[in-house]
Amino acid sequence: MKRVKVGLLGFGNVGTGTYETLQMNRDHIKSTSDIDIEISKILVNDINKPRDTKVPRGTLTTNVNDIVANPDIDIVVEVLGGIEPANTYMITALQNGKHVVSANKAAVASNFIELQNVSKANNCILKLEACVAGGIPILEPLTTSLMANQFEEISGILNGTTNYILTQMSDFGLDYSKVLSTAQEKGFAESDPTDDVEGIDAANKLSILMALGFGKYVAPADIPTVGITNISKDDIERAAERGYKMKLIASATKCGDVIKYSVEPKEIPISHPLATVNNEFNAVFIKGNAVGELMFYGKGAGPLPTGSAVMGDILSISKYIK
Amino acid sequence: MKRVKVGLLGFGNVGTGTYETLQMNRDHIKSTSDIDIEISKILVNDINKPRDTKVPRGTLTTNVNDIVANPDIDIVVEVLGGIEPANTYMITALQNGKHVVSANKAAVASNFIELQNVSKANNCILKLEACVAGGIPILEPLTTSLMANQFEEISGILNGTTNYILTQMSDFGLDYSKVLSTAQEKGFAESDPTDDVEGIDAANKLSILMALGFGKYVAPADIPTVGITNISKDDIERAAERGYKMKLIASATKCGDVIKYSVEPKEIPISHPLATVNNEFNAVFIKGNAVGELMFYGKGAGPLPTGSAVMGDILSISKYIK
Repeated sequence: MKRVKVGLLGFGNVGTGTYETLQMNRDHIKSTSDIDIEISKILVNDINKPRDTKVPRGTLTTNVNDIVANPDIDIVVEVLGGIEPANTYMITALQNGKHVVSANKAAVASNFIELQNVSKANNCILKLEACVAGGIPILEPLTTSLMANQFEEISGILNGTTNYILTQMSDFGLDYSKVLSTAQEKGFAESDPTDDVEGIDAANKLSILMALGFGKYVAPADIPTVGITNISKDDIERAAERGYKMKLIASATKCGDVIKYSVEPKEIPISHPLATVNNEFNAVFIKGNAVGELMFYGKGAGPLPTGSAVMGDILSISKYIK
Repeated sequence: MKRVKVGLLGFGNVGTGTYETLQMNRDHIKSTSDIDIEISKILVNDINKPRDTKVPRGTLTTNVNDIVANPDIDIVVEVLGGIEPANTYMITALQNGKHVVSANKAAVASNFIELQNVSKANNCILKLEACVAGGIPILEPLTTSLMANQFEEISGILNGTTNYILTQMSDFGLDYSKVLSTAQEKGFAESDPTDDVEGIDAANKLSILMALGFGKYVAPADIPTVGITNISKDDIERAAERGYKMKLIASATKCGDVIKYSVEPKEIPISHPLATVNNEFNAVFIKGNAVGELMFYGKGAGPLPTGSAVMGDILSISKYIK
């Protein structure tokens, strides 16, 4: 049995989802992969804060060096959210020879080139599956199973909050503001929803998809981005009358050497696979010059779906270490 | 630049699709992966048969040992179709220390356990992405990105011919026999369509999905299998009136330690993701205990989509050899 020690930076939604995915399936993972993953240290702000997820005494720490500079730890998982100190911690971990898994699209998209360079320079693996479309395997297929393709299009519905809002506006003929406030009450939207509804979160994810699928890094701030705050129920109804659905689409298309990219609300023909993706679901649509059209569909957020993606990255790395 | 030599067993639809995918994208692959794949030998029945796909002189051979016993060849790709001699050739190649890629679901499903055991015993990699759902990446995600899950359901529309027939029957209110003959004229169905319309092809694919997803091998002959030959346009209309679509579903569900499996026509609620999969498209639906519901959608057949999957497996292996 191979034993691999993991340190978590952060213990919010994704951190607890990762921890719980492992607890739920640890015996299964051991029996199918012969790998025993232990989350041995978790960075938090306050050790004594009451938590639903119980961890063994001594696991929580407020000192980041207990993880990024800990010789016993093989893999550092960064699930802090926000750009700093997340990026500094990832770079330090890589420089210390740790493999890094991140679910933090804002941090990764802001600093993709340096993260890639430092991971290569230190012979460390950097894995990012959970950054894009939550639990849906997309970065791994894009860079392994589909690597014999030249991609012509990578687009998708990459933000569950806005897709939920647009679906509810469409299904019930409601106004944006009314649906947003209900979504906030139910916990489907943040109290400050700016990053979601203005398309910033989708632009972060598109930046990572383009970097890995087209080999071209574009900073999220340089992606033309329009959110959904000006979409009215009339816009949605008029689109429906003509056979279209209104969706917030993050899209990159390549023609020759030219890549066009944007995040914006688009009318999608109801016959297109992306038109059937409703509520909190995400989907990524890919067109490759050999494989043709593909779509990957599933939950783009949530502690356990995202935990599934983080744990998948941890296990992929674990297969190739020691 | 890492150089990897590949031998193809067979040069039919999938063999030429693999060759053409490589020719089309070889420079791209070299620049993104630093790997140069050369298909150096191809087993055929008749070297002098006229072919649309041109290969360098000396590439074609009628002697299987030029491939499976050739010390220069790293990876053997089996795309012969049929159970024998395909299985014997794969076993011989593995025993000779070759990594093996196969797109031949009938051969692999008939002999899965031996193939797995011989590949392990010889420290060789056996990759099978193209066996299930053509170009759609499904076996790789199931065994890497999603490996932290316990699966509760793996089901899908795994045969393009039958899905095309059912879609056309549904869309145009036509009888089975009428659509089948049109499909045969257009080349969407074989002149002997038995393996497709009786569900045998789908059962082969389900057998492989279950072996890799649930760790349980069930021979295709032991999977209860009903095809679509007795589905009438009235059956489809009655289902539609109640809000259902008729689809040929290969399904395996796990509850506790019990796995139930079958291939049979089923009425799928129109709100289910699989109900939106039409014509020659395939889709695989997965439910994992962490990730929830996922669907992978794309072309389940065709020379280039299947060639994309074969080349993906070749490149995955190439990353880890030498």
